[in-house]
Amino acid sequence: MNFTIKINCKDEKGLVYRISEILLENGLNIIKNDEFVDNEKALFFMRTKVAGIAEPEKVIDQLKKQLGECSIELSQNKPKNVVILVTKEHHCLADLLIRNQFNDLNVNILAVLGNYENLRELTEKFNLPFIYIPTENITREEHEKEIKTALQAFDFDYLVLAKFMRILSPDFVKDFQGKIINIHHSFLPAFIGANPYKQAFERGVKIIGATAHFVTNDLDEGPIIYQDVIKVSHSKTAKDLAKMGKDVERIVLANALKLVFEDKVFIYGNKTIIFE
Amino acid sequence: MNFTIKINCKDEKGLVYRISEILLENGLNIIKNDEFVDNEKALFFMRTKVAGIAEPEKVIDQLKKQLGECSIELSQNKPKNVVILVTKEHHCLADLLIRNQFNDLNVNILAVLGNYENLRELTEKFNLPFIYIPTENITREEHEKEIKTALQAFDFDYLVLAKFMRILSPDFVKDFQGKIINIHHSFLPAFIGANPYKQAFERGVKIIGATAHFVTNDLDEGPIIYQDVIKVSHSKTAKDLAKMGKDVERIVLANALKLVFEDKVFIYGNKTIIFE
Amino acid sequence: MNFTIKINCKDEKGLVYRISEILLENGLNIIKNDEFVDNEKALFFMRTKVAGIAEPEKVIDQLKKQLGECSIELSQNKPKNVVILVTKEHHCLADLLIRNQFNDLNVNILAVLGNYENLRELTEKFNLPFIYIPTENITREEHEKEIKTALQAFDFDYLVLAKFMRILSPDFVKDFQGKIINIHHSFLPAFIGANPYKQAFERGVKIIGATAHFVTNDLDEGPIIYQDVIKVSHSKTAKDLAKMGKDVERIVLANALKLVFEDKVFIYGNKTIIFE
Amino acid sequence: MNFTIKINCKDEKGLVYRISEILLENGLNIIKNDEFVDNEKALFFMRTKVAGIAEPEKVIDQLKKQLGECSIELSQNKPKNVVILVTKEHHCLADLLIRNQFNDLNVNILAVLGNYENLRELTEKFNLPFIYIPTENITREEHEKEIKTALQAFDFDYLVLAKFMRILSPDFVKDFQGKIINIHHSFLPAFIGANPYKQAFERGVKIIGATAHFVTNDLDEGPIIYQDVIKVSHSKTAKDLAKMGKDVERIVLANALKLVFEDKVFIYGNKTIIFE
Repeated sequence: MNFTIKINCKDEKGLVYRISEILLENGLNIIKNDEFVDNEKALFFMRTKVAGIAEPEKVIDQLKKQLGECSIELSQNKPKNVVILVTKEHHCLADLLIRNQFNDLNVNILAVLGNYENLRELTEKFNLPFIYIPTENITREEHEKEIKTALQAFDFDYLVLAKFMRILSPDFVKDFQGKIINIHHSFLPAFIGANPYKQAFERGVKIIGATAHFVTNDLDEGPIIYQDVIKVSHSKTAKDLAKMGKDVERIVLANALKLVFEDKVFIYGNKTIIFE
Repeated sequence: MNFTIKINCKDEKGLVYRISEILLENGLNIIKNDEFVDNEKALFFMRTKVAGIAEPEKVIDQLKKQLGECSIELSQNKPKNVVILVTKEHHCLADLLIRNQFNDLNVNILAVLGNYENLRELTEKFNLPFIYIPTENITREEHEKEIKTALQAFDFDYLVLAKFMRILSPDFVKDFQGKIINIHHSFLPAFIGANPYKQAFERGVKIIGATAHFVTNDLDEGPIIYQDVIKVSHSKTAKDLAKMGKDVERIVLANALKLVFEDKVFIYGNKTIIFE
Repeated sequence: MNFTIKINCKDEKGLVYRISEILLENGLNIIKNDEFVDNEKALFFMRTKVAGIAEPEKVIDQLKKQLGECSIELSQNKPKNVVILVTKEHHCLADLLIRNQFNDLNVNILAVLGNYENLRELTEKFNLPFIYIPTENITREEHEKEIKTALQAFDFDYLVLAKFMRILSPDFVKDFQGKIINIHHSFLPAFIGANPYKQAFERGVKIIGATAHFVTNDLDEGPIIYQDVIKVSHSKTAKDLAKMGKDVERIVLANALKLVFEDKVFIYGNKTIIFE
Repeated sequence: MNFTIKINCKDEKGLVYRISEILLENGLNIIKNDEFVDNEKALFFMRTKVAGIAEPEKVIDQLKKQLGECSIELSQNKPKNVVILVTKEHHCLADLLIRNQFNDLNVNILAVLGNYENLRELTEKFNLPFIYIPTENITREEHEKEIKTALQAFDFDYLVLAKFMRILSPDFVKDFQGKIINIHHSFLPAFIGANPYKQAFERGVKIIGATAHFVTNDLDEGPIIYQDVIKVSHSKTAKDLAKMGKDVERIVLANALKLVFEDKVFIYGNKTIIFE
């Protein structure tokens, strides 16, 4: 059996020794090991994939006793449960539905929640529930309260904002700290805010991009997981850019989710550590 | 003989016909023709490379008569004369000196002008004059005045800022409208201003880049000619990013200059039209 | 009304003049014009997008009379009708079904034809016919004959091989000259033939890619339309590469089809001319 | 003091434990640790960067005793001594001379050896010896013998073939096993052999690239260190491709050397393991 351990500690001498000793005592073989030390802040990050017949929880308990105040996470490589939030655009959602259907991503989509109806048909094609929570005539707080109520039906690991075009309130974000992943349609920090493709067109940039990041209360400022770009030319209109950008958005979101769902990502202040 | 004609007009029907008629009457063959119409602003851009024995100036005169208020430029594909401005960093300068020496770029470097002495040795290795104009104890205006005086010795087509780390005053920029090309060490408009690599490190981006642009009075806001990026990871320090970025800067500047020096670029508001 | 004219002639002086004269006489405005001359072979390629109220067919007739032996194609920018051929892999098909459903590509999928049953469910989710033609107990000739018979029901412009893992016979290819587009899972000409990801793994390459091309009788030798690559590392197995490659394949096929379906591609010997 | 240890063993349980125990006993702190296990072949690769005041050689000795038949290499991060071999093209050489001069690469160039005279001037500009060994009127064996004799004057770690356009004999390669690095002007294994840009032009590919690899007796088949590509279009001639390719070649060679000279590369059969 394989499992993955993620450890984040204050750096000190002997950590690898003490960790590898416990793994060895439990008869585990280290298949892949990545380690990074932030020297400036004296922080230690380690991701170890091990193989063996040991009881994972027992190993984690021993590590916790041995290492003290570290953050230690166990992952048994099971698909992550997610709820997807959408507005009107289909491209990221469709991509994730296909990957979910064909097991191309370590994911188990539980439901899709939208503030428009138009993606219901697509979602239901794939035999998944679509929850429609419109925003008309209600406040942001009321809308988010309805979302939270709806979410209570699902035991999810992550919320994925697949072009959910609403800004979440600090309260909402706080309730799901480190659990909300968003795709932003620009190579952040360029073109923060609304209509990035229009901004890109007006600025006359020669590359456009997309950014997947964890959501924090600072709009478009959360820890970046993955980014990619494509080259564009003067002959493209703002609408062309938006269309071309969709392919980047889909791939960037899928790549970011792949990293997160395979337990390769540490959140670390407003940054990420990624062991690919 | 080959030459290139760049035409920029208000769009109207029959422009291609009227232009191609004159070219035909002069016995010219169109080797490569690129055209772009900005429909929104009704502007017509055309770049034509022709072959034949006609007198280029005569053809241009006929085109000017025929087309009226168009901007028409002739280029006989001769190397562009440039003066390079530098501060302390060598990588872009060295790259251009090598390309100049081995005719890898359609350029003829006349001189290098620096506000530090340290790039003199490199410049003189390639038998080019290095002009040292320090900034100590003088105002920005005095410094720029000295630069202008020095530049009077050279009949240059373009000024290339190859990591010249001073902000040019509006007066200076105005004197050389559309003739100053800068390399900025970020994928603009991200990380405008000082220390972009430090900003990039602190933001935790997964890609960094560089931007070559014409200089206007709006700092880092001039028409973008070329951009490129590279992927980076959490394990790189701000210093690492700066080091990795140098290779992008060199290539981006060289590619931008190649486009400009082969007469493939139109400046157009705060954008460029590029016929590759 | 907009339409697009593609012209391919022996090069001679005055072609642009004669073409633009006819366009002007018909009151047409040239919105975008691309031209390329292969000097070595003295061939002229032109793609013109025009706007106006003229009868397109009449214009084409006049051009044919005026230009003689040129190949002249008219396109009214209508979606291309296609039949998709598949074997077992879903990723390219799913991508095209989504684009078809949401009008993200200038395409109208008429049917999907597979030599396995497993993609029927996916196809029918999108309300398209799935035609199952197995290969068991029949010869290649018989199989292709059945395919041809099935295809007679559809008035298609192109056949798209979306991971159709059978080699087509020269007779089949001949019947659909310039009409069959394939996605190959390597950056051709590297790793021609079977199992390119396994070959790539064994060779230890640091980049893998995909190639979309027109199909000719020389296996994997047809005119290349589009290619792209991604970087990989030693830590990926052959299976990982195949999985990562799927995202490249999807995007490369979609980009190639976009170019072809927007009439931007000329086939030219075993190459393509592409006016983007 | 920092130093780097590279370990390559048959995989077995407890390796990380035994290694980290010795490092801890010597008071060393692990700054960065990368590990990879090839499960299929049961091979273990580890690169550890440590900080501390221990005697490096003593640590290595203890590791050798403890680990038995492993290959263990110590690197104290000193610049690598290299001799560069060239033919006529300047671009890779010039790039390396600049990096050497400005300490942009962990390298110390000892000499440049060419079979033409034309790069002498460039080399000597940077105060480095140029050794001219022409090939006229002598056999390959004689030529290589002269090279070997010339090389005896230098205590080099690596030979860098910076566009050295001669095929080295098996005997020569054998004498410098794992010590010769070449830049090949195609994205191998595409376009093996002569004139890859001409081959690329004739095949009509849409991307071209370059490959840096260790040299073995199988021509163009040695372990690949780094590859990169650029997009090209139909409008480029074979000569254009060669010119554009030069920028890729320079960057690919520099990036490969950076990896090797920072001790991040293991040779492993005909592949490389690279811990970036």
